[in-house]
Amino acid sequence: MGCDGVSTEVLDLKVYSYDASGLEGSPLAVVFPRDTEAVSRVLAICHDEGVRVYPRGAGSGRTGGSVPCEPGIVLSFEKMNQILELSRSDSVARVQPGVVTGRLQEEVERLGLFYPPDPASLSFCTIGGNVATCAGGPRAVKYGVTRDYCIGLLVVTPKGEVLRLGGRTMKGVSGYDLVRLMVGSEGTLSVFTEIVLRLIPLPKSKGVMVSYFKDVEDAGLAIEEIFARGIVPRTAEIMDEACSAIVAPDGIPGRDVRVGAILLLEADGDQEEVRFQLSEMEGASLTQGAVFVRVAKKGEEEMIWELRRNLSPAVRRLGFPDKISEDIVVPRGRIPAMLKALKSIERRLGIKIVCFGHAGDGNLHVNILCDLSNEREKAMDAVEAVFREALALSGRISGEHGIGLTKRTYLPWELDEGVLNAMKAIKGLFDPKNILNPNKVFQA
Amino acid sequence: MGCDGVSTEVLDLKVYSYDASGLEGSPLAVVFPRDTEAVSRVLAICHDEGVRVYPRGAGSGRTGGSVPCEPGIVLSFEKMNQILELSRSDSVARVQPGVVTGRLQEEVERLGLFYPPDPASLSFCTIGGNVATCAGGPRAVKYGVTRDYCIGLLVVTPKGEVLRLGGRTMKGVSGYDLVRLMVGSEGTLSVFTEIVLRLIPLPKSKGVMVSYFKDVEDAGLAIEEIFARGIVPRTAEIMDEACSAIVAPDGIPGRDVRVGAILLLEADGDQEEVRFQLSEMEGASLTQGAVFVRVAKKGEEEMIWELRRNLSPAVRRLGFPDKISEDIVVPRGRIPAMLKALKSIERRLGIKIVCFGHAGDGNLHVNILCDLSNEREKAMDAVEAVFREALALSGRISGEHGIGLTKRTYLPWELDEGVLNAMKAIKGLFDPKNILNPNKVFQA
Repeated sequence: MGCDGVSTEVLDLKVYSYDASGLEGSPLAVVFPRDTEAVSRVLAICHDEGVRVYPRGAGSGRTGGSVPCEPGIVLSFEKMNQILELSRSDSVARVQPGVVTGRLQEEVERLGLFYPPDPASLSFCTIGGNVATCAGGPRAVKYGVTRDYCIGLLVVTPKGEVLRLGGRTMKGVSGYDLVRLMVGSEGTLSVFTEIVLRLIPLPKSKGVMVSYFKDVEDAGLAIEEIFARGIVPRTAEIMDEACSAIVAPDGIPGRDVRVGAILLLEADGDQEEVRFQLSEMEGASLTQGAVFVRVAKKGEEEMIWELRRNLSPAVRRLGFPDKISEDIVVPRGRIPAMLKALKSIERRLGIKIVCFGHAGDGNLHVNILCDLSNEREKAMDAVEAVFREALALSGRISGEHGIGLTKRTYLPWELDEGVLNAMKAIKGLFDPKNILNPNKVFQA
Repeated sequence: MGCDGVSTEVLDLKVYSYDASGLEGSPLAVVFPRDTEAVSRVLAICHDEGVRVYPRGAGSGRTGGSVPCEPGIVLSFEKMNQILELSRSDSVARVQPGVVTGRLQEEVERLGLFYPPDPASLSFCTIGGNVATCAGGPRAVKYGVTRDYCIGLLVVTPKGEVLRLGGRTMKGVSGYDLVRLMVGSEGTLSVFTEIVLRLIPLPKSKGVMVSYFKDVEDAGLAIEEIFARGIVPRTAEIMDEACSAIVAPDGIPGRDVRVGAILLLEADGDQEEVRFQLSEMEGASLTQGAVFVRVAKKGEEEMIWELRRNLSPAVRRLGFPDKISEDIVVPRGRIPAMLKALKSIERRLGIKIVCFGHAGDGNLHVNILCDLSNEREKAMDAVEAVFREALALSGRISGEHGIGLTKRTYLPWELDEGVLNAMKAIKGLFDPKNILNPNKVFQA
């Protein structure tokens, strides 16, 4: 049946028991299918026998979405890792779910094409997981998220039925949009065995700049100003004071000014365009009170990005035993208000909050640093206060990490009962026995 | 209840009985709600009483999607036509469904913002109808379709329940993507009473050019070449020989060459960028055998676009009593093959086929010109042959017009039974009594 691997080794059961949320389960077995047929058979058997199935990409998710939290098997897609087709003329990639996102991007860029979604984990996360969570990343502000690129899916339902959804055309309105229903469904409605992604031409050049601000609210206003000038940056990342201290430990060269926030801004396109956009972003930064602005020289760009990508692990090294990473999103114009609210929560609760994220689309990663062994209650108060503020500002409790297990309790804060019931009913349609990644997102 | 209008006047019943497909029904009454509550009450009553409800925007649909084909009431949104909010800082518009698309675009552009979807009917079609059909248009090749801009919806289900879906943030992964499930659902799952649209900065300038080709296949290859050069045109419209004769009745000025196809190409962005893109598109056209290329001068652009927008009515004046407009989509690289196939169908069946469309995303509008009173069978053979060819080329039977009534029979040609059953089950969830736009898209 093309499935050469089922493991019940203690080591495998351990390795496939957790994800980047730190939550842990204990699977009964790990299955490594090699093709759609194998996946279909595994699901059909599990459905008949009432065995829970936990689909898994690279386990890099931050909300426990792939954790086998109740007894069941892990369905790992790591052996379905082939790029099946790269078509220049149709501008599509057809891949298996276990392909590592960064690897796909390299292959695609070699053809002068571009697959923009760039979660920070791109060097090890997989396309299947990206589709399951509708992964985003810094470039989403200009190029959108996984939803905007996934145009076709071969899926297997919890009953083992194989469905071909969407296709390889750029448009298509034949019936309901089941492709987008699957994107972001966190492995609860079906598993994906083949994914068709839309590709676009690779921008000819790019440029990076960094703007330093005294206050984080000024940085938020600069973002607004950039858009008001008609510029859509390739990326617009914000770092608060604590993150700025990690990225620029020596402050601003030759100046004795406290750095309260840094914006990392990118432009792409033709050379002329990049130059123009960078100069507009420089102007917008200075207008909103930037104390120092610097356009990166050739060769520095990758270094700057490495610093940004490593922020999340670097924050871990600040000396706090625990870090709770939240992922909220607010309307773009509400970023300054949200940043102000975070500071006030920090002061009020006396807990360290460190914030960075994709300010261009209002998606902020809020890190609560604490010692859970004796500050659990305070930390949870902080999480709840962050969600409450985001919702009060017409925001949402998850921008790109999903709901999984860690935010399940809070989903009813954002969604009305009727909406949740509609989602539960759809889950019931596809998975009446509740065997596929059960009780993730919501308690079915 | 905020609903000041219910009409059973004979004239109203006639006016609201048909759409642009030419299909006609006969409603029992026309209801003109003014707010969400009125819509909810109407639906709740109709649900209780088992009365069919046919939601309607401007009736500009081409597949009979809004036609009250069985006895029931028409729910017209023409009095819910307010732009509720235009937010520059959040880059969103919040509108009622009856807002005319072109009017929204004008208002938005006055603020330096841009709402790209541009169906040919934009001067009279409504945003509600655009969301229901996931409307596209020429600019979709660069900017995407309605799905890519609709981020929040207030909907009323067939039972009268009001659900708030999505929001006003650019990202968001809180539960299943019910917004996109509604987009393109053709008024069969819920009706929309408030719509939140993402806006982007208005491009600073644009340019138009026209390329003339001897053969339509060359034009298809030129499209491919444009993308291979890394250019994403703002629009890339193709017109076959018959359409070229309408748009350019005198052929190429000063040259005695048959025009087999015309490409209408646009670029937008900064001035420099526009110039560069136009010159690349000129080069691509000439490389692929264009016999004449012309960049439009200031003032000519709108004239050229008027010609293109009037193609559909102009084709009607070619002297054939009937015109069947089909709307297929193929992968971009298959355009030349599809165009060749259309010619061969035309020859084989001895029926006039005229083709234009959005070549940039493979979306072709195929017009079958005939006299249905004595050529119905041949015309239907042609329609079926067109669908068969599109599907054989990995295409789909509808790019942007939807399925409605006219394509319902053919949907199973594209979708497997399992996929259709999943769609029917979702319909059953939202509309168990099958009262909302019943039997559109598929027989429930």
